[in-house]
Amino acid sequence: MAGGSERLRFRGIVEYDGTEYSGFQVQPSVRTVQGEVESALKRVTRGCLDEQPVRVVGAGRTDAGVHSIGQVFHFDSRWCRSRFELQRALNAVLPRDIAIRELGVAPEGFHARYSAQSRNYVYSVLNRETRSPVRERFAHRVGGVIDVDAMNGAVACLVGTRDCAAFGQPPSGSVTIRTIYRALWRRTGDDLEFDVSANAFLRKMIRRLVGTLLLVGVGSLESDEFESILASKDIGRSAPPAPACGLCLVRVEYENQVGVLGKE
Amino acid sequence: MAGGSERLRFRGIVEYDGTEYSGFQVQPSVRTVQGEVESALKRVTRGCLDEQPVRVVGAGRTDAGVHSIGQVFHFDSRWCRSRFELQRALNAVLPRDIAIRELGVAPEGFHARYSAQSRNYVYSVLNRETRSPVRERFAHRVGGVIDVDAMNGAVACLVGTRDCAAFGQPPSGSVTIRTIYRALWRRTGDDLEFDVSANAFLRKMIRRLVGTLLLVGVGSLESDEFESILASKDIGRSAPPAPACGLCLVRVEYENQVGVLGKE
Repeated sequence: MAGGSERLRFRGIVEYDGTEYSGFQVQPSVRTVQGEVESALKRVTRGCLDEQPVRVVGAGRTDAGVHSIGQVFHFDSRWCRSRFELQRALNAVLPRDIAIRELGVAPEGFHARYSAQSRNYVYSVLNRETRSPVRERFAHRVGGVIDVDAMNGAVACLVGTRDCAAFGQPPSGSVTIRTIYRALWRRTGDDLEFDVSANAFLRKMIRRLVGTLLLVGVGSLESDEFESILASKDIGRSAPPAPACGLCLVRVEYENQVGVLGKE
Repeated sequence: MAGGSERLRFRGIVEYDGTEYSGFQVQPSVRTVQGEVESALKRVTRGCLDEQPVRVVGAGRTDAGVHSIGQVFHFDSRWCRSRFELQRALNAVLPRDIAIRELGVAPEGFHARYSAQSRNYVYSVLNRETRSPVRERFAHRVGGVIDVDAMNGAVACLVGTRDCAAFGQPPSGSVTIRTIYRALWRRTGDDLEFDVSANAFLRKMIRRLVGTLLLVGVGSLESDEFESILASKDIGRSAPPAPACGLCLVRVEYENQVGVLGKE
């Protein structure tokens, strides 16, 4: 019904509860967010004469169990009705734990991964002694006293262009240098949030940072030891990654990003 | 092992994700929070020579699907080890969606329901066009424009001692007069919260209030019509109850409540 029309690049924001997924990116024989979005697109764009399967490209490959309220993606399609109809149709067929928040036609030359200038993640810690049924799906619970000022003191050395090899492995190639724009802990009651923004992150880097910073927070590691771990570039010296459930991709930023994506 | 010791009244706070439960209070052949806590107590207090089953009394009977971060309960037991051990043992055997946040010995004459002076609930509305996988378990999503000031204007007439028959049925007996201490909507971004506190509530009263106030919020009902619905005492004039998922029992207050319960 929409065959023969122009092929357009669409970009969107996808929110997901990552608990039941093996991460964003398609891998053989496991459930992934990208796989679900591609399946939904296949169902919805039937009749558009698109190349099949329509490939979805995400800004960041979130790990198994990691959540998103701001993952950006793009795909190409000959869909010729409105972007609202496409978004509605996708949300109608996607599973409950995935939703397209915004969808629009991408600007010329846009690529969800290569055009991205920074990624902003928040890692949530619930600082409480007992389990929390209403919170633990999206937060890592830690009992005892956590010194947020000490963690902020330690993490200050991270901001800037740094070799982050001590905190993660590169997804491909061997470059471990990243530019960190912001790295800050905040406390509101028993909620702790680690707000971190960088041009890109190494594999499990944020969760290793959180694991190591929590050692500082509980007093098992001195602030200057954190700095010396960073300087060592030795991944064997950082703490194991904190659990995936606490991590959420909040926002991806692009050059000339005017207003909110999809609101053009 | 602890047989023969003194029978004590314990009080506690239970947090639960109510999604999978037919409410708090035990009913035949359905899963309830009270039923789960009683089962856990039975397992944990084995050997305490308690009367079986140990009966749990809650401050409020939350409906099917309603959540709690502050439900107060009491039970009597000959448990003779520390309250910390009892709390830990209960949390170890309770399902993941129920947890005992606090537990302690109750003051003389304490009764979770009869001693309660007020109940505070919060109803969460997510004001957004598209589904939210990370939010919808604990919020009712409503699209379009919602006028919070109009809803606050309407609900102001509720504060005080009122016959609330238009908004609910009494759980037993026929008295529909309740004293409402606070009824206020707040907005933070796309999050709306209805914060309401009263000596007690009628069945589904908060959800009927929310359903009716949202009509005011979207402009389908005038503020003074809300007041006339209240004055009519006719339950046929209020809106159907808003979904249970948005409602959470936040706090129960008692006379001479010093500090946080369980921290004595």
